[in-house]
Formats: sequence, structure tokens, C-alpha cells
Amino acid sequence: MAHLTYNASRIRGLSVRDIRFPTSLQCDGSDAIHPDPDYSCAYVIIYTDTDFKGHGISFTIGRGTELVVAAVKSLAHLVVGKNLKDIYDDFAATWRTLTSESQMRWVGPEKGVIHLAVAAIVNALWDLRARTQHKPLWKLLVDMEPEELVSCIDFRYIGDVLTKEEAVEMLKEMIPGKENREERMLSRGYPAYTTAAGWLGYSNEKIEGLLKQFMSQGWRHFKLKVGQDLEDDKRRCQFVRELIGEERTLMVDANQKWDVDQAVSWMTELSPYKPLWIEEPTSPDDVLGHAEIAKALKPLGIGVASGEMFQNRVIFKQMLQAGAIDYCQIDSCRLGGVNEVLAVYLMAKKFNVPVCPHAGGVGLCEMVQHLQIWDYICVSGTTKGRLIEYVDHLSEHFKTPSKITSCHYIAPKVPGYSTEMWEKTLQSYEYPYGSQWKELFKEGKYRDPRTCPPPWVEHREAGDITQR
Amino acid sequence: MAHLTYNASRIRGLSVRDIRFPTSLQCDGSDAIHPDPDYSCAYVIIYTDTDFKGHGISFTIGRGTELVVAAVKSLAHLVVGKNLKDIYDDFAATWRTLTSESQMRWVGPEKGVIHLAVAAIVNALWDLRARTQHKPLWKLLVDMEPEELVSCIDFRYIGDVLTKEEAVEMLKEMIPGKENREERMLSRGYPAYTTAAGWLGYSNEKIEGLLKQFMSQGWRHFKLKVGQDLEDDKRRCQFVRELIGEERTLMVDANQKWDVDQAVSWMTELSPYKPLWIEEPTSPDDVLGHAEIAKALKPLGIGVASGEMFQNRVIFKQMLQAGAIDYCQIDSCRLGGVNEVLAVYLMAKKFNVPVCPHAGGVGLCEMVQHLQIWDYICVSGTTKGRLIEYVDHLSEHFKTPSKITSCHYIAPKVPGYSTEMWEKTLQSYEYPYGSQWKELFKEGKYRDPRTCPPPWVEHREAGDITQR
Repeated sequence: MAHLTYNASRIRGLSVRDIRFPTSLQCDGSDAIHPDPDYSCAYVIIYTDTDFKGHGISFTIGRGTELVVAAVKSLAHLVVGKNLKDIYDDFAATWRTLTSESQMRWVGPEKGVIHLAVAAIVNALWDLRARTQHKPLWKLLVDMEPEELVSCIDFRYIGDVLTKEEAVEMLKEMIPGKENREERMLSRGYPAYTTAAGWLGYSNEKIEGLLKQFMSQGWRHFKLKVGQDLEDDKRRCQFVRELIGEERTLMVDANQKWDVDQAVSWMTELSPYKPLWIEEPTSPDDVLGHAEIAKALKPLGIGVASGEMFQNRVIFKQMLQAGAIDYCQIDSCRLGGVNEVLAVYLMAKKFNVPVCPHAGGVGLCEMVQHLQIWDYICVSGTTKGRLIEYVDHLSEHFKTPSKITSCHYIAPKVPGYSTEMWEKTLQSYEYPYGSQWKELFKEGKYRDPRTCPPPWVEHREAGDITQR
Repeated sequence: MAHLTYNASRIRGLSVRDIRFPTSLQCDGSDAIHPDPDYSCAYVIIYTDTDFKGHGISFTIGRGTELVVAAVKSLAHLVVGKNLKDIYDDFAATWRTLTSESQMRWVGPEKGVIHLAVAAIVNALWDLRARTQHKPLWKLLVDMEPEELVSCIDFRYIGDVLTKEEAVEMLKEMIPGKENREERMLSRGYPAYTTAAGWLGYSNEKIEGLLKQFMSQGWRHFKLKVGQDLEDDKRRCQFVRELIGEERTLMVDANQKWDVDQAVSWMTELSPYKPLWIEEPTSPDDVLGHAEIAKALKPLGIGVASGEMFQNRVIFKQMLQAGAIDYCQIDSCRLGGVNEVLAVYLMAKKFNVPVCPHAGGVGLCEMVQHLQIWDYICVSGTTKGRLIEYVDHLSEHFKTPSKITSCHYIAPKVPGYSTEMWEKTLQSYEYPYGSQWKELFKEGKYRDPRTCPPPWVEHREAGDITQR
């Protein structure tokens, strides 16, 4: 493998901020399990000994972000002070250092808070790497030799379905035609669908207005949140189906609301409205449950889509092995950053399951476009049966937001992973210090956590506390 | 269901401390994946408006404990200020409040850092409940009507294998003979096995000395850590097998070191030493992998044991459905406290898989004895094929450590969940403030985190920081 040189040589520091947007005030993002999300992220900047920086995001929905931020701080020493060459020359080893720290792994391993923290750091490392090579991330990935790309993946626990050699072979097979596919991504782009009209908290009028607006722009695929109330779901599905007609596509999303049996019976009731897929029918941990639901819904023509909450490659591996998902919805920060996402794309290819990434949130649209464009050029070679989710809100906070033309994501040209936010956004929305939060506290729309007495008792004497 | 009254009425506060013991200095607890654990815990005390307190533990192994402590603080408001009656009268609903907080669940859900935090809080709630009823926890559970006990369980995501009605029926069937079984637990106790001789970092001499000492005390079951080096494992297994003879039992534990295929081939090599089980052969997330390993090792007479890292009841459900484990190793704080543990015991009963709890660590021996004794009296009615793990270290830090007589855990009589530590321990081992830690920093055996510059950069102005 070629040992690259980098325009920066050493990581000299890392910062992490708790960035929250008060989206719950408008019910944006509301679903059957998350009625009031405040779209948020842990936002990491990696500083080098030159002007190059890396920006990494892990998406969250409000409370709990403070834990991901704390976990990033607990892991930061594993990258700060390191040479970029050492980090990137054996990126799989670097990744394992972060995911398998001998004491920290106990509070995971490779799941939940610490894995979200790993994602933010790893995503920042990839943004930095792409910037030092003056390429957008997708192009960095596309230009890697198969061996080099595969060397970024930790194959632990997935060797029974995919070996390094198989992965290299898969990538080599797709080399012919790469230039044409790259050209297509730059000119026409990657097809998208929208979730923006279907949040559970939206009124009929709001849904109708949004759907008509989207259809006039040419959108043909729409997703609706379900799972709160069966009769209401029937009414809303019928309402949307009538508005979009038989020729457009409806997907529905239950956000893990149901037990296995309930998922089957509920979706049987919704089958007359012909949804393409049911997304997150039950617990994201339930491989066998998803398999049973998929089997039961196949005769009804409804696929199972899931993945935004699958904690790591081991869950994806099993979902694919068990035939439990018809659409593989990778998440760019639930998984431990780009390295682990690459592994899942390659496993999905092996099982011939299309990847339709989870997006929306904060920065997800910006990130997943790179991954899916790489998939098209280097792995699957097709957009058939594949779509990237798209929700156009909060994109104004990014320096280079994803660009949609005729309902397609156009391949970005700016170096990096499109994860950099405006400094003004960071200063306004850092929780609870930012200027926007000060306003919201003053207006009484949120409680300032610094003025509430904590519900816990401190045991240490003042002398000890001030030593901190 | 009977609505109980409590001798305390309201929770007025909660404290949580980061308690760490420097066990890595002696290689206590070392295994193939965790070479240097510092046995630790998040330690919760719940205060009421009377003298009754509840003490809850979540076991950890050093770094990362600070995250569980932070998560407890983020969840504390969900119980502080509440009436005990409201908490316990619908304990399943209380539990779901903690595990499914609409924003916090994103950084889980029901796994990793936040689930460990839930466990510490829930375990404290059970300790408190038992104390207010003047009963040890096992007796509190034993004396509950089947309907009341089952009302503590959240059946979400397990309804496909166990319903409330089935669970009640199971418990009712076992009412006959309860008094005799209770008497046996108080007099003879519950059989145990020991892991204390088999840590990976121990020398031959240390292992031999410990094994001879344990055998002279009557111990008949021994567990050895494996997975680092095959030739070394063969040597150590042979060494131990020769020492303990054919008539005693050897178990081995790989602590998730292997891929699926590797687990099968490695254990085939170790099969001449006739281990009863291989514990944690691969990723705790890999249901299908465990199933494959179990199938391959059955002809060799080796069972698969696992569970200490199974993140929640959904993983246990699938492991049982798939026939992936021959021994079900519940953990009293990896699962979300007693409520979720009860669900797993009942599912294990349904699938006829014996429960052999994970213990050792900090406070695990103290906790699991209550659970397993309840299982014997009310669920399984037998100790056949079942053992509780036992490691006698750190027990001196507990006010009422588990009591072993003739290699059996004797049912505790003191009210509560046996989770209360001595105040002196808390003051000595709170990290990094305690007196023992001050010594260790002074001796240079550990670095004081308060004197190291953090590897991250703060962005906020001084004015903002002091507002904290």
C-alpha cells in the first residue's frame, strides 16, 4: 500500500462542543418514539500543526448530547499528539484503538454513547484527511486503491461473512466504468427522497401544503411517520396516497414503536396504501424479530428498512445474514464513522441488499452523500432501488450544504466531508452558552440548566471541588 | 395488585460517586480483552424524607466510569422529587420512564453508558424498597404475589416469546414447595464456582497456589481465562486440568476475543481438557455467531455461556430463541437493574436454559445471590446445572458482603440488596478525590487527571465558563 504524505503532520488538539437547535418548538423531527427532538450534535474540531483542521459530527436529539461530548473528551488523548502518518497508514488499527480502549470498552463496547463519540472523532479524521489531499471525501475514497481502502476496515467479528480478500476482489471488479459513473454523479447526481412532509406532529394542512410543494418540484418518493395510533395512521396514509397518486412512492416509518407481532398486524392494516417499506418496525437490537417481520410482510409487497439505530457492523452483519432487512439504512455517525460504514456497504453488496442511507438530522445529508456516491462509483455501480433520504432543514448552518438539483444530490466538489459549520452557528447554538440559548432561556421557552438546582447531592468538600 | 405503603414517602435527592479500586496493579481481573482493569463502579445513594436510603451500583472497570456517573446525573431528575408510591405501584412504567426518555434514548437506547446508569438508579430503588419493607431483596421478591412481581417488568420487545399472563402462570406453578426451598437457601445456600485462580495475568505459581488452597476448601468448579495465545492456553488448561483432576470442573472464558470461525477452531484445540463451557467466545452482539459456535461445539461436549455484556433483554431473548447459549449469564447492572433481570430469568425458564450469573467485580457477588436465590425459590426450583460465580476480593468494602459457607452462598438476612459500601471506602476510593487516590498519584503509580492539561481545547470565554 502506498504510504502517503500529508500536508499536516501532527494533531495538536481537539475541541468538542454541544450544539443544539430548538427544533422541538416546531415539531420538526417528531415521531412515535421521539415526540420532541431538539436536533443536536457533538461537534469535534481536530487541530493540526498547520492550518488544516478536521470537522466531525455525531448527530443527537437534545438531552444526552452532554454525554457524547464527555465521551469525546475521555477518548481525545488517543488521537491528540499523534502523527497523521501513524493514524492513516494503519487506519484500521487506529480505529480499534478508539473502539477497544481496554477500560472504556466496558461501558460499550462499540455501542451507544462511546460509539457515537468515536464517530465524531473518526468523522473529523476523515474530513481532515480529505482536506489534506484537497479532495471531497467521496473522491478520496474513489481514488484509493482497493487494498488501501480495505485496510481502513477492522474485520473483527465480521470475518465469517466477509474477508479482506473478498472485499478487495469486490472493489477490483467494479473498476471498469468508474470514470463514467463519477461523471454521472458530478452532472446528474444521486436520487433522493424526502421525509420533510411526514413528521408525526404535523397537521393535515401542513402535510398537504408541503406535499404539493414537493411534487411541483418533481419529488416522487415520500416518507410518513406512523405507529402512534392505527386509525390515525390509516387516515394519514390514505390522505397522502390520494394526494401523491398511485404512481408515486410512499414509505412509512414506525421508529421502533412495535413488538414483533404488532408490527405485522399493524402493517397488514396499512398494506392497502401500498407502502414500499416499513422502517424501524421494532427494536433495533432484534435481528430475529426483523427477520420474522420481513418474512410476514413479503407477501404483502412491503419491505423492511432499518439501520439508523443499528449500533455497529455486528448487528448489520446479522440483519443481512438473516434476510431481516430489504433496505440497509446506514447512519454516518451511529456506526463508528467512515471506517465502519465502509464495512457495512461491502457486506450489503455481498448480500445484494440496497443501501438507502439515513439522513436529515444535523449534517447527515451532508455526510451520507459522500458515502452513497462512493458506493455507486466503486461498490454497487447502480442506483436501482436506492435513494438517499433528504430533509432540507438546518442546512444553512453548514459552510457547504448538500446541493439538490432535480431531486438529486449533486456530488460535492469542496475538499473534506462537508461537516464544517459556520462559526456563528457554533457561537449561537452551543448549549447552554450560545446567544440563541440565552434568548430561549430569557423567553422562558427552555429552562437554563445552570439556574436549576441539580437533583443530585455533591459529597466532596469545597476544598476538593475547587481543585478540579 | 396490593397497593403497598412505605415507611418513607418521597425521594428528596440522589448522589452518585465515581469509585475506583487500583486492581490493575495486581492484574486482578485481567483477561484477553481487558489486560488492566481497575475495578470500579458508579455508586448511587437515593435519599428520602426519612432515614431510609437506597444504595445502587453499576460495575465498571476504570476509565469510562465518569461517563456512567454523568449519565446518572442526567437521569436523576426522573426520580428525585417523586413519591415512592408512584414509583413502585407501577414499577414497569417507572422503569420505562428511565429507559425511554424521549431525547436521551437516542444515545442508547437501552444499552451502554445510559443503560449502566439506569441500572445504578434502579438497583438503588430496589435496595430502598427492600429496606422499607425490612427484607433482604430476595425475600421481598419471594413474598411478592406473581401478579405484583410481573407488574415490575416492561414487556416491550419481548412479547413474542413471553407474555405477562405466561409469566404469572410460571410463577404460580412454582408456589408449592416455596417454604422448603427458602429454608434450604437459609441453611445450606446456593452452590458457587470460583474465577479467582484463573486470571490471565497470573503466573503458574500463583495459579497453583490458589487452586490448591481452593480445593482444600472444597471448591470443585474453576474458571480459567483464555484467548490470548493458543499454545499458552493449551499449556495452562493442561496444567489446571492435571491439578484439579478429572472429577472437578473446568470452565474457560475468552472475553469476546474471537471471530466465529476462530472460536470454533480454538475450542476444538482446547476440547481435550474437557471444559464445561466456553464463556464469551465472540462479540456479545452476535446472536447468530453464538448460535453457530454452540452448534459446532455441542458434539465436543462444550457448552456456550455468555451474558455479562448482553446489553438488554432483547439480546437475551434472541440468544434463547436461537439456541445460542447453554448457560445464561445475567449481569445485575449491565441489564437495567432488577426489573429487566427478572424478565430474563423468566425467559430462560421458558427456554429451559439454566442461569449462572456473572459475578466478581464490585458488588456483583453481593447482588446476584439475591437474584439467583429468588430464581431457585420461585422460578426454576432447582440448582441443577447452575452455579453462581464467586470471587472474593473487594468484599471488605461492603457493609454486608456475601457469605460463603462450604462453597455455597448463604441467603442474606439483612434488609436491602447488599449494595451498601462503608463510608470510609467511599472517602478513600472516590476518583480522583479520595485519600487512596491521592496516595497513588503521589507515589506516581497513576497520573492525577487534574494536573494533566486536557487534550481538548475550550472555546468559551472565561465569562461564560464561570457561569456554570
